[in-house]
Amino acid sequence: MDIKKYLQKKKETVDLALEKYFPNMPDSTGEGVLPTSLHKAIRYSLFAGGKRIRPILSMASFEAVGGEGDGILPFACALEMIHTYSLIHDDLPALDNDDYRRGQPTCHKVFGEAIGILAGDALLTEAFKLMTNQSIQGLFSPSHDRGWVLDVIHEIAQAAGMSGMVGGQVIDIESEGKEVGLPTLQYIHTHKTGAMIRVSVWAGAKLGGADEKTLKAFIRYGERIGLAFQIADDILNVEGKASRLGKKTGSDLSRGKATYPSLFGMEESKRRAKELVELAVTAIDSFGPEAEPLREIGWFILSREY
Amino acid sequence: MDIKKYLQKKKETVDLALEKYFPNMPDSTGEGVLPTSLHKAIRYSLFAGGKRIRPILSMASFEAVGGEGDGILPFACALEMIHTYSLIHDDLPALDNDDYRRGQPTCHKVFGEAIGILAGDALLTEAFKLMTNQSIQGLFSPSHDRGWVLDVIHEIAQAAGMSGMVGGQVIDIESEGKEVGLPTLQYIHTHKTGAMIRVSVWAGAKLGGADEKTLKAFIRYGERIGLAFQIADDILNVEGKASRLGKKTGSDLSRGKATYPSLFGMEESKRRAKELVELAVTAIDSFGPEAEPLREIGWFILSREY
Repeated sequence: MDIKKYLQKKKETVDLALEKYFPNMPDSTGEGVLPTSLHKAIRYSLFAGGKRIRPILSMASFEAVGGEGDGILPFACALEMIHTYSLIHDDLPALDNDDYRRGQPTCHKVFGEAIGILAGDALLTEAFKLMTNQSIQGLFSPSHDRGWVLDVIHEIAQAAGMSGMVGGQVIDIESEGKEVGLPTLQYIHTHKTGAMIRVSVWAGAKLGGADEKTLKAFIRYGERIGLAFQIADDILNVEGKASRLGKKTGSDLSRGKATYPSLFGMEESKRRAKELVELAVTAIDSFGPEAEPLREIGWFILSREY
Repeated sequence: MDIKKYLQKKKETVDLALEKYFPNMPDSTGEGVLPTSLHKAIRYSLFAGGKRIRPILSMASFEAVGGEGDGILPFACALEMIHTYSLIHDDLPALDNDDYRRGQPTCHKVFGEAIGILAGDALLTEAFKLMTNQSIQGLFSPSHDRGWVLDVIHEIAQAAGMSGMVGGQVIDIESEGKEVGLPTLQYIHTHKTGAMIRVSVWAGAKLGGADEKTLKAFIRYGERIGLAFQIADDILNVEGKASRLGKKTGSDLSRGKATYPSLFGMEESKRRAKELVELAVTAIDSFGPEAEPLREIGWFILSREY
């Protein structure tokens, strides 16, 4: 299969759906009070060229277990909204203090810090609003229990919250400039990025109707792919072209961030990333061609050609 | 009824439940990586002496329509968690830049801006995690549809998000130092504080099993009480004792914030607040003694003896 074409097509589906949820707002209607700057800031970050890896993983996972229809789409979009909020807040001066992301000035550089903080808050909240929308109920087959939807939202909140992404971000910030060992680095990686990637894969399979055994296999895939993704990101931060990265390479090093390359060296990091993708693919090798996109995404993550 | 005793008792119930969700964490277990500072920051703000008005309104509303059991408690706590996150973020230097709240240094003054931002993010996320917890399902009678729970979470997200609280905060920030008229002031008040108070009342009634007619009456009560609450807050900001307020009085004025007193004068503001509470109480006058706490809370809000 042509994985690049697959990713492009799925990305377009996600972009279209996100565009529907956050349509362009007229500058002024001439009447009424509207937080237009907030809306602009949200759109600025949401449509800043993200590759939609998390939503695509959830959709690929949904389809791999035989999920049909558009029921996964609101969840896929919510995953991207949560990811985008985390990027906006991570870039803030009090956190990573990044002026550029994907080659564009960061949200707070364009709209100011207050709107940056509030745009992140809004995106996080709207993600949960989207996942609880009544219209979602009609998207699934009658065999779907509403309890499933609650469970999926719960797991996504768990992955995004203090025992997941936010917790990882806290340890990341507090570890800057310190010499940290593998347990800390692994905590950061599995929580800051790993948790949301893992839950994206799991949520897709769960909403697609997977049984417990399948869910376990997909979680193993998700965990391994998540860590491989972050190691690839660490490698890219050292080796990547600034033009492709959209920000300065070597920023992790200059900031004293613990990374796989800083702990294990470049060769060993590449070996581990490759091994993780192999293990991820192995976890789902009992599935047929319907799981091919998940396998291909694994290999694509290694290349990080984006 | 003794409303102060009632409020105290309900506050204790909420505090106990919140304590269960966010127990004190040991400083160090000697092993493992844990975001202890995040946990401390969350507890610091969550147990900083809040009066728990939103959760109490949801509980009073739940009981007024005949709701039984503890099913309302996780939602009551979630409402307080969302409120607390909004206070932490509002106090940040990029927003209101407040050093004190309820007589204590604000969260970011104690734990730093990064942890302040992340503690807010975590509280917001954990609120949704709490409301989707599976154990909640057992708290309601079988007549409760899980779809109700989804609807309630959806409405809470709506009230907290860009068309609610966050939207109001954006307009509030952008209106500072500008001469604004009543439409803008009303937008700020009904969105920044009003939306969450309104949804607290509505969620309690909905989860308590209220029919559509009752829900409509409770929404009218909630809207009026919400605006009265904010006007009383505006008045308190001018007239209140700093010792009681926990921060400098007159901060709205020095910051150029639009308030009811600045637009209508003190006497007219007091008259309007009183009128709103009267209208709120009228909206639920067909209910019997079971709605007495809601009526008493209305009059108590006017006094703002806290």
